[in-house]
Amino acid sequence: MSLRVLDYLVARLKELGVLHVFGIPGDYVLPVYDALLEKGISIVTTCDEEGAGFAADAYARIRGMGAVCVTYCVGGLKVANTTAGAYAEKSPVLVLSGAPGMKEREKNSLLHHKVRDFDTQRRVFEELTVACTLLSEPERAPQEVDRVLTQALRYKRPVYIELPRDTSFAPLPSSTPFPPPPLVVKEPSDPEALEEALEEAVTLLTSAQKPCLLADVEIHRFGLQQELEEFALQVEIPVAATLLGKSVIAETHPYYMGVYEGALGRPEVREYVESSDCLLMLGVFMTDINLGIYTAQLDPARCIYATSERLSIRYHRYENVTLEDFLRGLLKRTQGWKAPRREFPRPPGELSLGEARDRVTVRSLFGRLNRYLTDETVVIADVGDALFGAADLLVHQRTEFLGSAYYASLGFAVPGALGAQLANARLRPLVLVGDGAFQMTGMELSTIARWGLDPIVLLLDNQGYGTERQIRQGPYNELLPWNYWKVPDVLGTGRAFLVETNEQLESALQESFAVRGTFSLIQVRLNPEDRSPALARLAERLAAQQ
Amino acid sequence: MSLRVLDYLVARLKELGVLHVFGIPGDYVLPVYDALLEKGISIVTTCDEEGAGFAADAYARIRGMGAVCVTYCVGGLKVANTTAGAYAEKSPVLVLSGAPGMKEREKNSLLHHKVRDFDTQRRVFEELTVACTLLSEPERAPQEVDRVLTQALRYKRPVYIELPRDTSFAPLPSSTPFPPPPLVVKEPSDPEALEEALEEAVTLLTSAQKPCLLADVEIHRFGLQQELEEFALQVEIPVAATLLGKSVIAETHPYYMGVYEGALGRPEVREYVESSDCLLMLGVFMTDINLGIYTAQLDPARCIYATSERLSIRYHRYENVTLEDFLRGLLKRTQGWKAPRREFPRPPGELSLGEARDRVTVRSLFGRLNRYLTDETVVIADVGDALFGAADLLVHQRTEFLGSAYYASLGFAVPGALGAQLANARLRPLVLVGDGAFQMTGMELSTIARWGLDPIVLLLDNQGYGTERQIRQGPYNELLPWNYWKVPDVLGTGRAFLVETNEQLESALQESFAVRGTFSLIQVRLNPEDRSPALARLAERLAAQQ
Repeated sequence: MSLRVLDYLVARLKELGVLHVFGIPGDYVLPVYDALLEKGISIVTTCDEEGAGFAADAYARIRGMGAVCVTYCVGGLKVANTTAGAYAEKSPVLVLSGAPGMKEREKNSLLHHKVRDFDTQRRVFEELTVACTLLSEPERAPQEVDRVLTQALRYKRPVYIELPRDTSFAPLPSSTPFPPPPLVVKEPSDPEALEEALEEAVTLLTSAQKPCLLADVEIHRFGLQQELEEFALQVEIPVAATLLGKSVIAETHPYYMGVYEGALGRPEVREYVESSDCLLMLGVFMTDINLGIYTAQLDPARCIYATSERLSIRYHRYENVTLEDFLRGLLKRTQGWKAPRREFPRPPGELSLGEARDRVTVRSLFGRLNRYLTDETVVIADVGDALFGAADLLVHQRTEFLGSAYYASLGFAVPGALGAQLANARLRPLVLVGDGAFQMTGMELSTIARWGLDPIVLLLDNQGYGTERQIRQGPYNELLPWNYWKVPDVLGTGRAFLVETNEQLESALQESFAVRGTFSLIQVRLNPEDRSPALARLAERLAAQQ
Repeated sequence: MSLRVLDYLVARLKELGVLHVFGIPGDYVLPVYDALLEKGISIVTTCDEEGAGFAADAYARIRGMGAVCVTYCVGGLKVANTTAGAYAEKSPVLVLSGAPGMKEREKNSLLHHKVRDFDTQRRVFEELTVACTLLSEPERAPQEVDRVLTQALRYKRPVYIELPRDTSFAPLPSSTPFPPPPLVVKEPSDPEALEEALEEAVTLLTSAQKPCLLADVEIHRFGLQQELEEFALQVEIPVAATLLGKSVIAETHPYYMGVYEGALGRPEVREYVESSDCLLMLGVFMTDINLGIYTAQLDPARCIYATSERLSIRYHRYENVTLEDFLRGLLKRTQGWKAPRREFPRPPGELSLGEARDRVTVRSLFGRLNRYLTDETVVIADVGDALFGAADLLVHQRTEFLGSAYYASLGFAVPGALGAQLANARLRPLVLVGDGAFQMTGMELSTIARWGLDPIVLLLDNQGYGTERQIRQGPYNELLPWNYWKVPDVLGTGRAFLVETNEQLESALQESFAVRGTFSLIQVRLNPEDRSPALARLAERLAAQQ
């Protein structure tokens, strides 16, 4: 059989490690599904496209690239929000949309699923991605595919490819090398700028009395965890992580201090970071939640701020210096040097476990969970106290904490577990989700069950929107109190527990961690007014801004 | 208390009949919720924003205006698809989004929920609505609100208003009349063009031997059902409806023939419509599904084609002639004239009921349902055989059939029932939904239960995506077979039935229609290969285009 345009795209997806694609069938996309299946890429049909979008985002965070494949408009527009989240938090997700053929469009007729005109969906995704293409001509398709995928890898942000059904099955231009040579993404730094920046940074660091590192999510996205850990060990500088970047450094690392989040975090970490005379910020997102709703007091005059998009030292800026080259350069040029010895805060050890027969509290829940985490656990936290309370969990490995900590879109965690475990079968997801978020996307446990995955889902049931309740009371914060533990009866599979006391929680956790091959759902009935100390502080700040 | 910008908007909403607003709380929108509640507008918190969007669409179709109120980006972008559906099918939904204040934006900081820049969400909605505004200045807010709402009423399409949290609570400009004088929407026709068009149309109609009417959804959106029925009675011309416009004319009307959908519909209706020597098409959407995937053979030389956006007679076009003025003019100028008497097809009577102990089929299901419809029933059909099979249901009243028959977005029906019954408490929704669509949004039964509503939900369970299966077989069409009838156990409320035979169906229907105040969910286990004749014909056409 001769090669088709779609074969080129599929070859690229496999090169980038995409072995699962998430979506829902629809007539514009069915032939694409068959083409993917033929080449050994699995189609994961979710309950709703929203679940597909969140799953692909988690998949991308772990494997470096993820994809949804959806039908035109009724499928594509359902992943607008999840794509926006991937954009905001730098996760390279490919949105692949089936579409009417170019010939059909010429008639400009009202084909089903069309909104305003044939370009509506593409224009929406131009706002939500770093690169878009409509494969309107078979001749230009290979270069367009490469252009768009390269941007995804360069910026770690989502991209969009629209596949008209006539051109995607047209013959691949005969001049196209197949299989294609590997994609090249690297944009090297400007050597002079790099040299000058490194020299300045090393001078500042090595003359500092109290240098400090603050690491965030880009370290993970650009695969620099190893370099970060080595660097901290070599120069003996303590490291804090942001909430969004929790786990970019192993939390068992000897120089790890804990999470920094301005006034919302632990005061001793805040004090250390803010009083540093040379703060090296690596891949940090300057976001409101990350920075404790602007309570962070970081003096630019004492900061070196390196990200994938800019490098600033004090009040000036270097162009064309990549995060990767900068960190590698620091590692090389500081060999033999060590920072002055100084006491620094250590991550919290065991949290309070509560009494066995007492009601579970947010605090005792996280305290007990902490003892179950292993190197194979990936913690996936949904928005709310599931996320804020998780800040002090001790995460063992480097890549093992996923959450929508900046974009803060409810409903990420359960479908995120689907994506995470398919991305890396060695991982076992521990999902932390509130009841509000579970009502949005929790039924994706159905898809999880179909694929034989076995996440453990801790459902923090406080009967309503707990975070909003902290800001403002109102009837709109209340939810119908589901018997979540009966969800396995509906699905015909899975295990569930309803727990109210610490000893019930303990036995549910033991059983869940002991059994493999099926999901466990643990509904934890909390006092609706209970909350983590972090949420209490956050809510106070947010309420003050209303 | 002095008046605020938001009070003006709320006054307009109440003027337009919006007494319920759908959404999910989030910090940017909480104060707006309180402002709505203060003025007696109910906030309906759904499970997911998608449900809110579909509910508002159904609400708008029944009441003439509906609204979602959501938080910035993580809420707004979740209703991108439902807003697109409302655009495509002409339903005036207001998307009201909370947003960061204008002052906060000046710092251009990474506030949570932001995607690329502060205008991202608004630009997305510019693609999906007929009018957008960001209420950035209190002074201009009243005129902006009026401009946008007027467009929604004029075009029956969605609009978008973004509420920065500082300006929406700023004082209303003192020059603003309050309460505001009623909104004026009417754009009168050009009298000369109207005169000439009417004269030509009446000449064509009254000299025709076999005139025929084809009516579609705009008749309903513009409130012209009464005029249409009177006109057909007066001139004694038979009427067909499209699938999208099913029920714009009472199906018990003496001149009603049934649904016209090209080769996909009943052959006798097709023959009559296509052989007419003067076909008057009123408010018709020229869409592929409506026209039987382009099997319709309608000769423009014999057509008068009037919609809210254009009027064409044969091959020429009139500008500035409204559908309303045109139809009213026809009614006036044809008094005393009657079309030549001629036999025409009648809608199908009782459908086959099947034997009591036989397995339920799509055909026997609709046959039996037909006998339960009353003037209080609103049929809400989701996409798939739920919709196609419903084409021959006998709908009693004029406004009583809702479906996403053009945009064809799965998941509309269950949240649609929420919107429909809140829009008109006298109605009892009968929901027809496939298992695929139910897995998307069916858990909105939770919201339905919270509001004490009592739709009857017929779940056509063929264990997968039945329509796609007809086009192309593949593992992606299969779903986990839920025990849907156990959903009430999870929700802690509601009634459910599992039926396989016709007699089980009959007794479930009897019980469901007899009991009020709680939803009934009837899971109908169908043979996965079973399908309506209409779906069989549709699938053949779609498969041929793959």
